[in-house]
Amino acid sequence: MALPTTTAAAVLTEHSAALTLRELPLPDEIEPGAALVRVTCTTLCGTDVHLWSGQMTFPGMLPMVLGHEMVGEVVAAGDGTTDTFGRDVRPGDRIGWSESTCGKCHGCAILREPVACASRGYGFLQRADEFPYATGGLVQYCYVTPGAAKLLLPAEVKDTWAAMSGCAGKTVLRAFARSGGVRPGATVVVQGAGALGVFATAVARISGAGTVITVGGPDDRLKVAEQFGATATIPVDSRPHDRIIQVRDLTDGRGADHVFDFAGGPTVGEEAVAFAAQRGTIAVVGSTGPQPSPVPLGTVMGKELTVVGSLNGDIADYHRSVEFFGTFGTRMPWDELFGEPVGLSGASARVESMSRFGELKAVIDPRLP
Amino acid sequence: MALPTTTAAAVLTEHSAALTLRELPLPDEIEPGAALVRVTCTTLCGTDVHLWSGQMTFPGMLPMVLGHEMVGEVVAAGDGTTDTFGRDVRPGDRIGWSESTCGKCHGCAILREPVACASRGYGFLQRADEFPYATGGLVQYCYVTPGAAKLLLPAEVKDTWAAMSGCAGKTVLRAFARSGGVRPGATVVVQGAGALGVFATAVARISGAGTVITVGGPDDRLKVAEQFGATATIPVDSRPHDRIIQVRDLTDGRGADHVFDFAGGPTVGEEAVAFAAQRGTIAVVGSTGPQPSPVPLGTVMGKELTVVGSLNGDIADYHRSVEFFGTFGTRMPWDELFGEPVGLSGASARVESMSRFGELKAVIDPRLP
Amino acid sequence: MALPTTTAAAVLTEHSAALTLRELPLPDEIEPGAALVRVTCTTLCGTDVHLWSGQMTFPGMLPMVLGHEMVGEVVAAGDGTTDTFGRDVRPGDRIGWSESTCGKCHGCAILREPVACASRGYGFLQRADEFPYATGGLVQYCYVTPGAAKLLLPAEVKDTWAAMSGCAGKTVLRAFARSGGVRPGATVVVQGAGALGVFATAVARISGAGTVITVGGPDDRLKVAEQFGATATIPVDSRPHDRIIQVRDLTDGRGADHVFDFAGGPTVGEEAVAFAAQRGTIAVVGSTGPQPSPVPLGTVMGKELTVVGSLNGDIADYHRSVEFFGTFGTRMPWDELFGEPVGLSGASARVESMSRFGELKAVIDPRLP
Amino acid sequence: MALPTTTAAAVLTEHSAALTLRELPLPDEIEPGAALVRVTCTTLCGTDVHLWSGQMTFPGMLPMVLGHEMVGEVVAAGDGTTDTFGRDVRPGDRIGWSESTCGKCHGCAILREPVACASRGYGFLQRADEFPYATGGLVQYCYVTPGAAKLLLPAEVKDTWAAMSGCAGKTVLRAFARSGGVRPGATVVVQGAGALGVFATAVARISGAGTVITVGGPDDRLKVAEQFGATATIPVDSRPHDRIIQVRDLTDGRGADHVFDFAGGPTVGEEAVAFAAQRGTIAVVGSTGPQPSPVPLGTVMGKELTVVGSLNGDIADYHRSVEFFGTFGTRMPWDELFGEPVGLSGASARVESMSRFGELKAVIDPRLP
Ligand SMILES: [Zn+2]
Ligand SMILES: [Zn+2]
Ligand SMILES: [Zn+2]
Ligand SMILES: [Zn+2]
Ligand SMILES: [Zn+2]
Ligand SMILES: [Zn+2]
Ligand SMILES: [Zn+2]
Ligand SMILES: [Zn+2]
Repeated sequence: MALPTTTAAAVLTEHSAALTLRELPLPDEIEPGAALVRVTCTTLCGTDVHLWSGQMTFPGMLPMVLGHEMVGEVVAAGDGTTDTFGRDVRPGDRIGWSESTCGKCHGCAILREPVACASRGYGFLQRADEFPYATGGLVQYCYVTPGAAKLLLPAEVKDTWAAMSGCAGKTVLRAFARSGGVRPGATVVVQGAGALGVFATAVARISGAGTVITVGGPDDRLKVAEQFGATATIPVDSRPHDRIIQVRDLTDGRGADHVFDFAGGPTVGEEAVAFAAQRGTIAVVGSTGPQPSPVPLGTVMGKELTVVGSLNGDIADYHRSVEFFGTFGTRMPWDELFGEPVGLSGASARVESMSRFGELKAVIDPRLP
Repeated sequence: MALPTTTAAAVLTEHSAALTLRELPLPDEIEPGAALVRVTCTTLCGTDVHLWSGQMTFPGMLPMVLGHEMVGEVVAAGDGTTDTFGRDVRPGDRIGWSESTCGKCHGCAILREPVACASRGYGFLQRADEFPYATGGLVQYCYVTPGAAKLLLPAEVKDTWAAMSGCAGKTVLRAFARSGGVRPGATVVVQGAGALGVFATAVARISGAGTVITVGGPDDRLKVAEQFGATATIPVDSRPHDRIIQVRDLTDGRGADHVFDFAGGPTVGEEAVAFAAQRGTIAVVGSTGPQPSPVPLGTVMGKELTVVGSLNGDIADYHRSVEFFGTFGTRMPWDELFGEPVGLSGASARVESMSRFGELKAVIDPRLP
Repeated sequence: MALPTTTAAAVLTEHSAALTLRELPLPDEIEPGAALVRVTCTTLCGTDVHLWSGQMTFPGMLPMVLGHEMVGEVVAAGDGTTDTFGRDVRPGDRIGWSESTCGKCHGCAILREPVACASRGYGFLQRADEFPYATGGLVQYCYVTPGAAKLLLPAEVKDTWAAMSGCAGKTVLRAFARSGGVRPGATVVVQGAGALGVFATAVARISGAGTVITVGGPDDRLKVAEQFGATATIPVDSRPHDRIIQVRDLTDGRGADHVFDFAGGPTVGEEAVAFAAQRGTIAVVGSTGPQPSPVPLGTVMGKELTVVGSLNGDIADYHRSVEFFGTFGTRMPWDELFGEPVGLSGASARVESMSRFGELKAVIDPRLP
Repeated sequence: MALPTTTAAAVLTEHSAALTLRELPLPDEIEPGAALVRVTCTTLCGTDVHLWSGQMTFPGMLPMVLGHEMVGEVVAAGDGTTDTFGRDVRPGDRIGWSESTCGKCHGCAILREPVACASRGYGFLQRADEFPYATGGLVQYCYVTPGAAKLLLPAEVKDTWAAMSGCAGKTVLRAFARSGGVRPGATVVVQGAGALGVFATAVARISGAGTVITVGGPDDRLKVAEQFGATATIPVDSRPHDRIIQVRDLTDGRGADHVFDFAGGPTVGEEAVAFAAQRGTIAVVGSTGPQPSPVPLGTVMGKELTVVGSLNGDIADYHRSVEFFGTFGTRMPWDELFGEPVGLSGASARVESMSRFGELKAVIDPRLP
């Protein structure tokens, strides 16, 4: 069977504008270590929305193909292409994939932390008009580069779950690991009620937290947070001082053992410190950019807090996220996280919807019309 | 022998003004658990200076007796008075002492961290005109309250070392413990070149740090830091950006494995984050007060930093500090930390001198005229 | 109302023989810090059985009153009697209690770990014919000594749950804390299917373990373990090599992330090491006595295992256990752990039943006939 | 210049017999990622001695070339050969090298611990009569395989130091990291006075240990341990009980905060547990083989010890060891660890000498006659 030589793609050519349906070239040959994949599911994440809107931007980025949470079926594999565990990747296999890491820098080799890699490759952060063209998720056929970390997926993990594991899932699980684990019965505040915040709410609960307070909005997302195990929710449009009082009241006056920032924003640090109990832990996950925001360091000292930064995760976190869904597939109503699947022609509307706090996670199935 | 019924004291009656020499009453009887001590050495710490100047203040605090780093000889002991280890405290014994903790609050009983005690007693933070009057260090005879944690002192640890262990020493050692220990050869930045910063410089070096960079001033203190093991120093009046470049250059471009804030101030958090290497640790020790200061949380995340608050320490830290000086008495020129001893009449001048960055630690020996 | 001057008690006078119902004196007055309590529930633990049988013994121990997991209603309280949190203990209050610790030894003051106390007081390990006579649980009225750590109990925590928290509950929760927490989805082996093992099975599950394998016997206890969340069980009378193979098969060939020894016995160390995955953790909780047992240290090294010893816990662990039951009261069929309550006259039969692997935890309600 | 086509080698053909000087073939071409190196220094380690004597043996191992701690000058490099940090490896460069790891197994990819690699390649554990023939250290020219982790060496680190970093150095530093670091003033027992034990003694001291007790023999090695910072030494031929008493006496009756097993042997576990203080840490480094040895698990529990296994280390540990010598080159008399350099013809005598507790580390410089 001849391989496809082009692919349909939904391309971002202008920020905050509709995606353009376009036909992109596919590489003539599949390099050793690479694969051509027919995408079956791409889930969108907050970063996609920020790239779309231009809230997150970098020089010369357009045109680009959005989407970095995706899975598909291998159509063709290069010579010696294996997944992270060295298992052969062959046509017909179902795989997910993630960033490449160099294995040679201080972060990779000495810190043994691939997220700290000095030259992490985002195969998908490529211009759509330059080789290898079709590396983002909003395509029919995706070229998975040799360096991209690949994972053969177990059958019991749904496409949406596996796709989400490639970014949202691994990010949340890594943040919990960085926070040192949740003692059974512990109190947890989750800042943010987007996909990360809601998933973190579920993970906190599954990890044995006794009290899980999700702070965010809008209200329908807080309702979803409750479905995923929140024992209380606090709307983010309440007065900051009221939020602090509420957390205090919900935690026997002691504050939360763990605070997870999946929200970002200028007040998140100050509130996290106020929410935390003596000797509590704060995981900073949602804050981006170089600009400082106010943090009461005197209180960090006074409560002897531990504040840890946590990045999105490496292939181990990705793998653990896939395993997580395999293990806890029936424990939560996971499918409530996802919108109705649409084809590439519907992608544009879904991105825009997410930007207006519509569905938590839009689902694109490029096989749909 | 009759016990003294009054004691000479240098009393703070007005901020930023000279201390007043005054005779304070002593309790008629020594309560069970308490002791009357003839002070042989009080060392002053930055907090004393801030209390004196009024930079640190609270309602109704004056008149008060400054000094909370002190040792002395027991003149009389109450019924059943013991030290922290249950050893009898008897007349003639040489002891140091520190805050009381309640043993009953969440911090004491559940967190097992006396520094988190909800009702830590600062015997010395008492008005000089209320019972028990003479609990600060700038007195000839000091009343050591029943709750105060007491330590019998080993002969090989000098008065100045033992006195300093009661606050500065324990604070620094606890911060190192909170930071998870120093790998041999690690790179350390110490923010601050006061007594805490210089002592921390020495502890970093003794702990096996390969590179210790002390940031502070004025220049003669940086010279002292070098005597205590700094491999490089950076004046605090340099341009912030230059400091960051210097730290980078001194750490093979990677930043510091550990940053210790013993300086406080509005820019300390931002600089600490810039100084730190990927996956580095920042200990917040010198920041006080509830007001926030700018911290680039996006960089905390991007570098996966760990930021820990550390308080001044409990009796275990105090004990470890005394042991530290016993063990490393000849390893550093410790006595360079201390000014020339003066009597109570000279205390006023010494406090003022410290406020102008004079000696690192003034020494008061109330037996001197 | 006049206080009772004697109490009915079930007294152990000879090992492996029936307990003797006897009337013991009660102290004439309640010392400051002490309380007289009408026992409403005593649950028996393995140690009670070992003391009864003489498997655990020490010189001059008999006659003694068994029982160290108990709760009751305060009949009279001494001057200034408070619970661990400093809350007044008054007649009518419902309390549990536990060992005294000195607060002054190296373990208490420097390690900040009361379980390491050099003079931990087991109020209940007292001869029944010496003051204060009635300090064990198998009495109608119990004298709670001044040093004993006391806890006011929340209404939502049942008597049996609170009683069990005083030994079994806190022991298990501490072991999980010592093991560093359970990653969501982790694999756990619990060695032992007694009360500790079954409770640990539940805690592992609640903590987010994905696979929990309980190794023990007899078969009806393994059935109970399944009710409490075991995903697989292995009978202890299988061949050792088969057990290892089974654990390997149940953990994708990798072994368990966590092994908890709640069994003791000469082969438990060797098996734990074989069960554990690379970089796994083993918590040693059930092994007692000074005699060594075989451990393949070469494998400890080869797998880079972490082996932690964990003791029965302090008042913080006790408190957390009470909170645990408050939080997770409906999460597991806790009441399956307990036998049918009987009066003091039935205690003898229950101890003997437990020694023959009858009920997991016998319940004595001394108010029953 | 034509590359050499053969190399002189000292080959082990029979256990406990003299090594045979033999000419081995060299590969016709240098594969991509590989290098041909002129060895300038090989230091021998205990494993070499055990392989020589046959104490450590495996089927079909002979003939083999001993030596896995070595450095040399690159004579030729394959296409794209880089060191661990991706730096080009070119003729004239001075490099050290170490085991290959696969990067794809559970240990490498998920645990992120290359020492746990399921297919760690010991390039040097190859038969000398099979391709690539000359991969051990006792050769004039060594073929460094593509997978071997390579390190460009800084000029200030001597050949002997860099060679030793490849096994002994990294093993010791990793063990200290696994043990959680040494608190300043801590008490340390080092079991073993071979090269590992003596180096560990030095590392303990440099890390800030206050008391370092080296247990081993013979006496002249204990003398060397003192030169490297031991504050006390205990001969291994003393009575076991006496050793325990001595450690107790040297640690204020508390035992050691850290015990490091660099000795192995059937009694090492039992003694380590006896040496350790409450809540102390034991690092198991010297124990090998699958056979169990006696460990008093009841005491592991009673003292709440932490026992960690530690393997020989990965390229990060190797790198840190090289850095360590660069940083602390003048801190200890490192050269006392090493014997007088001899050529390949003298290697045989040196191995035999080490087996009789002669020099701590024999040094072979194959350029010598
Ligand atoms: Zn990298
Ligand atoms: Zn994303
Ligand atoms: Zn307290
Ligand atoms: Zn102070
Ligand atoms: Zn104690
Ligand atoms: Zn018990
Ligand atoms: Zn591997
Ligand atoms: Zn070796």
